[in-house]
Amino acid sequence: MFDTIIVGAGPAALSAAIYLKNANKNVLIIEKDTPGGKILKTEKINNYLGFTEEDASNLAYKMYSQTQKLNIPILIEKVIDIKNNGEIKQVITNKNTYETKSIIIACGRVEKPLGIENEDKLKGKGVSYCVKCDASLYKDKVVAIISKEKDDVIYLSDIASKVIFINYSNEDIKFNKDNIEVINNEKVIKINEENNIIKSITLSNNKEYDVSCLFIETGYTPNIDFIKSLDIKTINNYIQVDSEMKTNIDGIYAAGDIIYKNVYQVITAASDGAISALSVIKYLK
Amino acid sequence: MFDTIIVGAGPAALSAAIYLKNANKNVLIIEKDTPGGKILKTEKINNYLGFTEEDASNLAYKMYSQTQKLNIPILIEKVIDIKNNGEIKQVITNKNTYETKSIIIACGRVEKPLGIENEDKLKGKGVSYCVKCDASLYKDKVVAIISKEKDDVIYLSDIASKVIFINYSNEDIKFNKDNIEVINNEKVIKINEENNIIKSITLSNNKEYDVSCLFIETGYTPNIDFIKSLDIKTINNYIQVDSEMKTNIDGIYAAGDIIYKNVYQVITAASDGAISALSVIKYLK
Repeated sequence: MFDTIIVGAGPAALSAAIYLKNANKNVLIIEKDTPGGKILKTEKINNYLGFTEEDASNLAYKMYSQTQKLNIPILIEKVIDIKNNGEIKQVITNKNTYETKSIIIACGRVEKPLGIENEDKLKGKGVSYCVKCDASLYKDKVVAIISKEKDDVIYLSDIASKVIFINYSNEDIKFNKDNIEVINNEKVIKINEENNIIKSITLSNNKEYDVSCLFIETGYTPNIDFIKSLDIKTINNYIQVDSEMKTNIDGIYAAGDIIYKNVYQVITAASDGAISALSVIKYLK
Repeated sequence: MFDTIIVGAGPAALSAAIYLKNANKNVLIIEKDTPGGKILKTEKINNYLGFTEEDASNLAYKMYSQTQKLNIPILIEKVIDIKNNGEIKQVITNKNTYETKSIIIACGRVEKPLGIENEDKLKGKGVSYCVKCDASLYKDKVVAIISKEKDDVIYLSDIASKVIFINYSNEDIKFNKDNIEVINNEKVIKINEENNIIKSITLSNNKEYDVSCLFIETGYTPNIDFIKSLDIKTINNYIQVDSEMKTNIDGIYAAGDIIYKNVYQVITAASDGAISALSVIKYLK
């Protein structure tokens, strides 16, 4: 019987695990993939306090090894169901069933890819899914963006020398800034590379645009398939929590990119994780 | 004219500054003391994700040097007043007046010391003002605590081998745990040291108790003297903000230990700072 099982091994999960272990709780992390979460998919990180751009290349490893110094067990298994039997809960994976007094769900969200040539290959090499994470890497460069958020385009235009906004909507979107070019009625059909780095994008009119980055912000899918048998409250498929990261189910908490909130950053995920752990510690008493 | 002036240079302030600078904003930090904030006063940090206990000895320096690599200016001056003239605000220090479009108040809070012998000298050497920060350093040790929060005492008792709870209240407080000893009607009158580390505490009955740490959680005072001329909303002297770190005054934000919230940790402060910066960037448009 565990005190807490954490589902996921991204920043929120690892931060929660550290707090729980430091409070002498019996904690288990279950992750279907490599520990590190979205950091592994981000090009470079230059806004996590304490890590300069150079240091951040091994941020995911640092986070992981911190849990290993504390001997926190991480199982690489896929959680397929969670059963809430009141004070004792069951986490069911593809291999086993684990009993626990509490659960923190922290398995993040995945971006919605365009599904075009070279997109996956150039992820982190000029294809980015997070403007606020990666924009500053393209200071005074020419970049392209597909986004539903006007704010993201403006944010980018304060940093890049030129922003090519490829308008995937049917609305007429205008910006009051000289360095934003709006392209309507076209889609990106191909990403072109040179030496394994993005070189340009090709649009459906067959025109090619040289860019240093293509930002794709077409939305995310929270990883909540496995909790469908739980009666957990969500908003747009994100888990709804209160300020203590508590869901509507006693003893079940959520943290990081899987919760409904305003800001999805590595530092905010780590903070969510800490808050969820302190709430769990209070709950366990 | 600055885009943003940040008052304070602890984790919330430095994190905000990094986000603002990475978004190409003209940002100034004003701090009356040494950059680093409460980290400099915490014994050891072992729960900031990415920094193991050994790494964390230079966490404050790492945070500071990250801002310096980005050429973020830090002025060592004391802010004595803030004037809100609508779109342009003035930050008045002991030396000068600075104009800015927005402000982030992130100057933290200070603990209320007992004011007894050796207390200040042994801060970080067996005198701690933060159970949730430092408790795990005293695994299987004997510690003493003065606190208004029963939760803190229980938290500590899960980690330490024995907790001596010195009850400063007039209430009869009981715990259902064998390793908590409650001492009523006495005060700590002296902290005794050996080789510059705590050795024991002496109570008002002149009894001496050997301890590895004395936790003093008698409350904090938020540093808000200088904003008294602003009509800013507070709760128990903490600044009230919404989920975007916005105060009731347009263009003025707050982050970190100075805001009213549940969890006061380094990682949560850094997260608050990031959120406040992203809100300011939206506001500046």
